[in-house]
Amino acid sequence: MIEKLKQAKAASKVLGIISVSKINKALENISKELINNLEFILKENEKDIIAAKEKNISKAMIDRLLLTKERIKSISEDVLKIKEINFDIDKVLDTFTTKEGLLIEKVRVPFGVIGAIYEARPNVSVDIAVLCLKTKNVCVLKGGSEALNSNKAIVKVMHQAISGILPVEAITFIDDTNREKVLELIKAKEYLDLVVPRGGKNLINFVVENSLVPVIETGAGICHLYIEKEANLDKALRIAHNAKTSRPSVCNAIETILVDEAVAETFLPQLKDLFTKSNVIIKGCKKTREIIECEKASEIDFATEYLDLIVSVKVVENFDEAIDHISTYSTKHSDAIITENNKKANDFLNLVDSACVYHNASTRFTDGGCFGFGAELGISTQKLHARGPMALVEMTTYKYKIHGKGQIR
Amino acid sequence: MIEKLKQAKAASKVLGIISVSKINKALENISKELINNLEFILKENEKDIIAAKEKNISKAMIDRLLLTKERIKSISEDVLKIKEINFDIDKVLDTFTTKEGLLIEKVRVPFGVIGAIYEARPNVSVDIAVLCLKTKNVCVLKGGSEALNSNKAIVKVMHQAISGILPVEAITFIDDTNREKVLELIKAKEYLDLVVPRGGKNLINFVVENSLVPVIETGAGICHLYIEKEANLDKALRIAHNAKTSRPSVCNAIETILVDEAVAETFLPQLKDLFTKSNVIIKGCKKTREIIECEKASEIDFATEYLDLIVSVKVVENFDEAIDHISTYSTKHSDAIITENNKKANDFLNLVDSACVYHNASTRFTDGGCFGFGAELGISTQKLHARGPMALVEMTTYKYKIHGKGQIR
Repeated sequence: MIEKLKQAKAASKVLGIISVSKINKALENISKELINNLEFILKENEKDIIAAKEKNISKAMIDRLLLTKERIKSISEDVLKIKEINFDIDKVLDTFTTKEGLLIEKVRVPFGVIGAIYEARPNVSVDIAVLCLKTKNVCVLKGGSEALNSNKAIVKVMHQAISGILPVEAITFIDDTNREKVLELIKAKEYLDLVVPRGGKNLINFVVENSLVPVIETGAGICHLYIEKEANLDKALRIAHNAKTSRPSVCNAIETILVDEAVAETFLPQLKDLFTKSNVIIKGCKKTREIIECEKASEIDFATEYLDLIVSVKVVENFDEAIDHISTYSTKHSDAIITENNKKANDFLNLVDSACVYHNASTRFTDGGCFGFGAELGISTQKLHARGPMALVEMTTYKYKIHGKGQIR
Repeated sequence: MIEKLKQAKAASKVLGIISVSKINKALENISKELINNLEFILKENEKDIIAAKEKNISKAMIDRLLLTKERIKSISEDVLKIKEINFDIDKVLDTFTTKEGLLIEKVRVPFGVIGAIYEARPNVSVDIAVLCLKTKNVCVLKGGSEALNSNKAIVKVMHQAISGILPVEAITFIDDTNREKVLELIKAKEYLDLVVPRGGKNLINFVVENSLVPVIETGAGICHLYIEKEANLDKALRIAHNAKTSRPSVCNAIETILVDEAVAETFLPQLKDLFTKSNVIIKGCKKTREIIECEKASEIDFATEYLDLIVSVKVVENFDEAIDHISTYSTKHSDAIITENNKKANDFLNLVDSACVYHNASTRFTDGGCFGFGAELGISTQKLHARGPMALVEMTTYKYKIHGKGQIR
């Protein structure tokens, strides 16, 4: 593997100074070749699906693994969309002159080599490779063993597509799915500039705990919706329903609803009616269960990302208790307040320490597409470098170019 | 310690919404109180100096530990300088509206709690505390055991100074100098948002290898000066001399000079003359030693940050060999080319993957003060978040405030 990483690093030097038109040509070819090789990719994907079924892997997991004609077409279209984004990788971010007459330019540059460690979904291989190419970064892809055949096929097709335009090592794939290799990868500080784990909590924790390469943590979303006492309850219901049920398996869905006790008696029965119709299981605190019948919420439930049609509900005495609860349990992804009181809304937006803080809107909008960034590598839940939707800009860093005339200090 | 970290986190919430005028008042008081308590600080510092002498600690280390009347005055003046910097911590960095009509504001915010782990120099306690306060960050200071009495005295004075204006936990000091406590601190992901190690290579490596909290690596500087064949040799000599000798113990001093073989026979004897006068020991590669008499440079020398009046010299065949050498040995801090050929200079600035890349100037300018940033927490050598001089802006992150009218997705 170290040999592959060396080649990846070498490729990053070539990629760093290549023309944008070549990059875009490569992206166009990837989009085309995915369609041209659709049958091949589907055939290889079928191998993974058969193996997964034999292992009795969950239906949800098999669905994430599955590629179809339509899905590949949609992946191919997404590549073209990324190609079309107008992104200036060589942007001069700032220019200034020091008192000694040094001209300093702060210029945007790629990271260099970005490692991505992910799980079942084979479309992630294309997503990450294309976002990296667009930002002149080399990617080192380490997908899950369940998707090995699919990923190999996709990478083969991408290599065909970029060959002759870019160094094929710009898309480096680690086909050894041994868990040991993950460890080796995240220790390879000499070759990788950044590593992004995309997947479940266990994978993310493993990477954070063991990596010597700087990490961006993404995707853990225990998101809260706080129904303040001056909330418009119709808005509150509509937003609660959307934020929980429109796509429960994603990180920007809510997991906990906090209800001010002043409105709990009115709000909770309506919430129960609406959520029962949508098959959402409510787990309530003691006060909640005094108002509506539901399952019991324990402390651990408030610290759980269900990613399912389940929601924790807690009645809070006041604004401060809501803030305290969020401060204890939020994963710093997205949290929202519903209120018609603008002072309270502003306090909430200031006090809640999350990447995205909402007033009277659904947390489901935390998404690179919705924010108008065109695409995203993930939703960062840490504060270093990138917060929230991590798009093309956040996949770059900067350097200072200093132009002198012989100055000494 | 966990109790202290909890209080630090609580203090960060208060600090985050405090007025800038209170912050500035606190900084002014710190500056004053350092002078008012000068005798007390000197007395406590003397205890550390006596203990250090008993332990036969090196002269250089004792000098770093030593406080004098003049040094404290200068520290006090620096606090006022930081107070005077016009820095908008609540800056709105961007505002945009989505197609659904959500108004999104990207606003600058403090990190929250910044841990700093450092070694002998007690002035670092003031530097970091003041930079953190200015950016509304709480600091958790963990100084070296050699400076314990000095640090305790300084922190006591700072607490007196801010008491009644800010929560005193905004400056949190860990007075247990047990090494185990460092480990506990860098694992405390729940309470710290960022950790910055300031000190030697061992300390930095220990933190990077063990931290669960995001780290900014600072200060490792194997900086290069490349004398290209079209260099003006007078400029080259002057810059080489300045970059090596003006302050050899700092990270932006050069450790290696690469000389194009086309100019080696002219340049090296002049370099030797000049460096001999300044007591600089030259360690040369084989080709260097064919031209001038000097010590032998081994592979390990090229990977060594001397921080002393020693320099490695290597004769390179051409531009590409210079780039390759830098790519192998540079710590990505600062590297320079001396040439009158602008094309070569631009290629160098593009290809060398360091935070600061120079054309015809001394690497000694890599410094927050020289760059006009007013102050710095350190020189970052990683690519995530901050590169080069890490000043007030880089001590902050951002959040997205999303203002809705009931929008759902």
